[in-house]
Amino acid sequence: MNALFEKHKALLDGALDAAAKRGFWAGFAESQKSYGETGPKEGQAAYQALLDAAFELDQPSNGARIGREVSPYGQSLGITYPGAEPDSLFGAAAAAARVWSAASIETRVGIALEIVARLNQHSFLIAHAVQHTTGQAFAMAFQAGGPHAQDRALEAIAYAYAEMARLPSSVLWEKPAGKTSIRLDKDFIIVPRGTGIVIGCATFPTWNGYPAIFADLVTGNAVIVKPHPAAILPLAISVKIGREVLREAGFDPNVLLLAADEPEAPLTKHLVTDPRASLVDFTGSSAFGQWLRDNVRHALVFTEEAGVNSIVIDSTKAFKAMCQNIAFSLSLYSGQMCTAPQNIFIPRAGIETDEGHKSFEDVAAGIATSIDELLGDPARAAGILGAVQSEATLARISAARGLGRIVRDSAPLSVSGMRSATPLIVAVDAEEEAAYLEERFGPIAFVIATADTQDSIARATGSAKTRGAITAALYSADDALVAEAASAYAVAGVALSVNLTGGIYVNQSAAFSDYHVSGANPAGNACLTDTAYVAGRFRVVCVRRPAA
Amino acid sequence: MNALFEKHKALLDGALDAAAKRGFWAGFAESQKSYGETGPKEGQAAYQALLDAAFELDQPSNGARIGREVSPYGQSLGITYPGAEPDSLFGAAAAAARVWSAASIETRVGIALEIVARLNQHSFLIAHAVQHTTGQAFAMAFQAGGPHAQDRALEAIAYAYAEMARLPSSVLWEKPAGKTSIRLDKDFIIVPRGTGIVIGCATFPTWNGYPAIFADLVTGNAVIVKPHPAAILPLAISVKIGREVLREAGFDPNVLLLAADEPEAPLTKHLVTDPRASLVDFTGSSAFGQWLRDNVRHALVFTEEAGVNSIVIDSTKAFKAMCQNIAFSLSLYSGQMCTAPQNIFIPRAGIETDEGHKSFEDVAAGIATSIDELLGDPARAAGILGAVQSEATLARISAARGLGRIVRDSAPLSVSGMRSATPLIVAVDAEEEAAYLEERFGPIAFVIATADTQDSIARATGSAKTRGAITAALYSADDALVAEAASAYAVAGVALSVNLTGGIYVNQSAAFSDYHVSGANPAGNACLTDTAYVAGRFRVVCVRRPAA
Repeated sequence: MNALFEKHKALLDGALDAAAKRGFWAGFAESQKSYGETGPKEGQAAYQALLDAAFELDQPSNGARIGREVSPYGQSLGITYPGAEPDSLFGAAAAAARVWSAASIETRVGIALEIVARLNQHSFLIAHAVQHTTGQAFAMAFQAGGPHAQDRALEAIAYAYAEMARLPSSVLWEKPAGKTSIRLDKDFIIVPRGTGIVIGCATFPTWNGYPAIFADLVTGNAVIVKPHPAAILPLAISVKIGREVLREAGFDPNVLLLAADEPEAPLTKHLVTDPRASLVDFTGSSAFGQWLRDNVRHALVFTEEAGVNSIVIDSTKAFKAMCQNIAFSLSLYSGQMCTAPQNIFIPRAGIETDEGHKSFEDVAAGIATSIDELLGDPARAAGILGAVQSEATLARISAARGLGRIVRDSAPLSVSGMRSATPLIVAVDAEEEAAYLEERFGPIAFVIATADTQDSIARATGSAKTRGAITAALYSADDALVAEAASAYAVAGVALSVNLTGGIYVNQSAAFSDYHVSGANPAGNACLTDTAYVAGRFRVVCVRRPAA
Repeated sequence: MNALFEKHKALLDGALDAAAKRGFWAGFAESQKSYGETGPKEGQAAYQALLDAAFELDQPSNGARIGREVSPYGQSLGITYPGAEPDSLFGAAAAAARVWSAASIETRVGIALEIVARLNQHSFLIAHAVQHTTGQAFAMAFQAGGPHAQDRALEAIAYAYAEMARLPSSVLWEKPAGKTSIRLDKDFIIVPRGTGIVIGCATFPTWNGYPAIFADLVTGNAVIVKPHPAAILPLAISVKIGREVLREAGFDPNVLLLAADEPEAPLTKHLVTDPRASLVDFTGSSAFGQWLRDNVRHALVFTEEAGVNSIVIDSTKAFKAMCQNIAFSLSLYSGQMCTAPQNIFIPRAGIETDEGHKSFEDVAAGIATSIDELLGDPARAAGILGAVQSEATLARISAARGLGRIVRDSAPLSVSGMRSATPLIVAVDAEEEAAYLEERFGPIAFVIATADTQDSIARATGSAKTRGAITAALYSADDALVAEAASAYAVAGVALSVNLTGGIYVNQSAAFSDYHVSGANPAGNACLTDTAYVAGRFRVVCVRRPAA
């Protein structure tokens, strides 16, 4: 078994080193060109072959076929997945976990790494699956759904491995007792928590799902993956690949199971309230996050929920580059990233810039104009915006138009069949909190007129504390102000990006370096990835006896 | 500030090394003789000086005086503590934590280590306080309440330090981008979770309370210590000493606060349901543990609750030594340790021993006789049994007499004023689960007749899984059986001691080596101490900006 561990040891060592040092490092290349000339065609062909057919997955099933995914680009996928009863899934998972949990750490980690490497080989297939469920443009679906998600998986594996490997498997405990000593042989046994339920989301099913899946697996737990009904395929492919590797390695593949469902017959509540669920990982709405906290007290629950991300503009030495950077952040995947900004706080009296004083209106217009320029070419616009995942987002845009003065209106792209929308920017006063203090998921942003930058920062950090926030950005030419603000953002538990321009955006969260979700505000307690995210997924039991 | 860190660095390094290797190590000597000739007298005098007086503690107070502790050895302590409103405690804690949380890791860890070292200097005083609140005999009150508790504190500090120190404070993140690169300076800021509430117990107030207090403190949180109303003094002394060190080091001592209460006006629910409570650590009943899970969903909750600990007797090569060992485990502190065994499973047909076959009755009688011998001398008996902490325990003994056939009856010691009881042993059949499957706290044990050892192990591990268990013991001369059983106990999440004889007992849990409470069964989720116990007490926030 440890052949797989040895095979991937350099990758693991790289991940361990990177997670410790937190500089840039990637386990998997993010460039499509790195994957060979035939990759794109093979990936597309593999995706096409899955359409309008039964997805083959050899796992416990009740005979039903589940799935009505429709691409945000128009076409129905026509794929069905095997239905399954929670009871049979839990039974199969527990039976498979008996052997899996008794395998060595290296065996489990080796297999997990092999699964991730195998996923990497299927990055083009997964990219198509991600694109046509989430609506992400292909380039993003490839990067975020493929290598970046695989890096997040690798990161979780590395953290969990480090925690387990730190423990000696046995020790001679020798306590002096007068002229003699008391000697005990002690064995330390890693015990998994039980069966994990991973509840996927509709926008980043692999990126948000993999860390929990792999953290659970390597710590000896079985995992039941419950995808969002609108984005089953990426996780179904991932589960299938995982099961293949498990089977090849001689394990019962039911360590990793798919629980597909449809909106009319959701399985999630059945799964998570079952006393056999020991771990629950969820990415989605705050309302369901609260429901989980209220109803699931027998399991360890990790959530990534909604938040209201902010940008505070105090001043800048690069006005145009700032507006361009913000324009891209608002446009990328049509604001459907959990890291996308929504609230842009600007002093009512305007700001100082390298282009002289800019009024509140000037700044708002600068961002709006940059969006227009960025999205002026329809093909490029589609490549940045992607499609809108859910019809509900279009309704939210319509409703948001009435919340203030429209600075830049949203409009669909003229691409047939595709559900799309460019960013809406609405201007409001800081007092109009009802407009901007709730998350309005999608390409909806507010420019908010404040008394001054102190007011802006107080509102941005205050809403992070009370409503949650995953990211925040600050533009200021005043280093002292930045230093002081950094403490306020830290207390609010929100990752802060300062003065970003050029090819790096507040939306981006890098594995091995950035902590995605701090856990210190209502946006969630699941940090991808820190020690707290993995350490409770297993426990240690000691067996001691007199030494020979 | 870092002078304190340097002063105690060798101690910290020792603790870090010991926690990693898990062999025997102690930061503080457990022998009274190690503390100098004048220590005992000074400790006693210091204790006497506290009696029948107002305990001085310079912290926010509502002017009320709280406290009606009565020693299980008879006398009223006559000590009153300052009363305080939860609201003012939370306010003071939050104000103090602002500066405390911004201090360096080394500053906080140095101060925490100084507090522990200062507690160690007061071990005799604390021993008297522990004896006259918990009822422990003096020798145990000294060891468990003093150096052993201090070692558990040190262990928690070491774990928390290791987790925080692992993180770089800053890094240059440089991502290749074609011929150039994207360069970001990143700072990583440790953010405490908030205010911690530590709810003490009546039997081991310091041993069970210190790990949470110190884990919270070093990770930057303020702590409100809410002692059991019957055992305020040991934690009041500890808080007072902690506040002195904090003040000397230039910090607001309200980082560490006492919330004393009386049974008629309990504060616990007020404290833990306050949204400002971010961490709750509780040692006590399963009923209140469940109440916490049901009602405290805004805070991270760690519990140590009740469990039903077991001994399975399969066979032995040292019958007399086994009986003596079990007798001591049942007698020590009158069975009031969370690690004390309750249920002794013995095959109906008896067992094989070095003294030949022994019937079920022979084994039961062997243990009973060993208890009689152990407690034959009244002075020695008092030194082992200590006093019974609560009147309710005597009522439980009375009730337990009717649950089966009495093998050995409980009786008080003939010491005037002292509440005492020797172990009661009741024989039942394995089918009589209602008798033995609930925790009957105190000197109450059952000898339980089973079909065979497999039946015994199934029942012992089964009850650990469903009712919780912190310890288990197994006596068997069959190595293959032991190996197989070890896996079953591991799955049940209970620490297993095999074939203990001589001066080591199943009740004993050693800091730096044994994990106290696995977290893998209903006896609690708080492991003293593992990474999961400390890692969630702080979070990490990243601030990033373009590198110069």
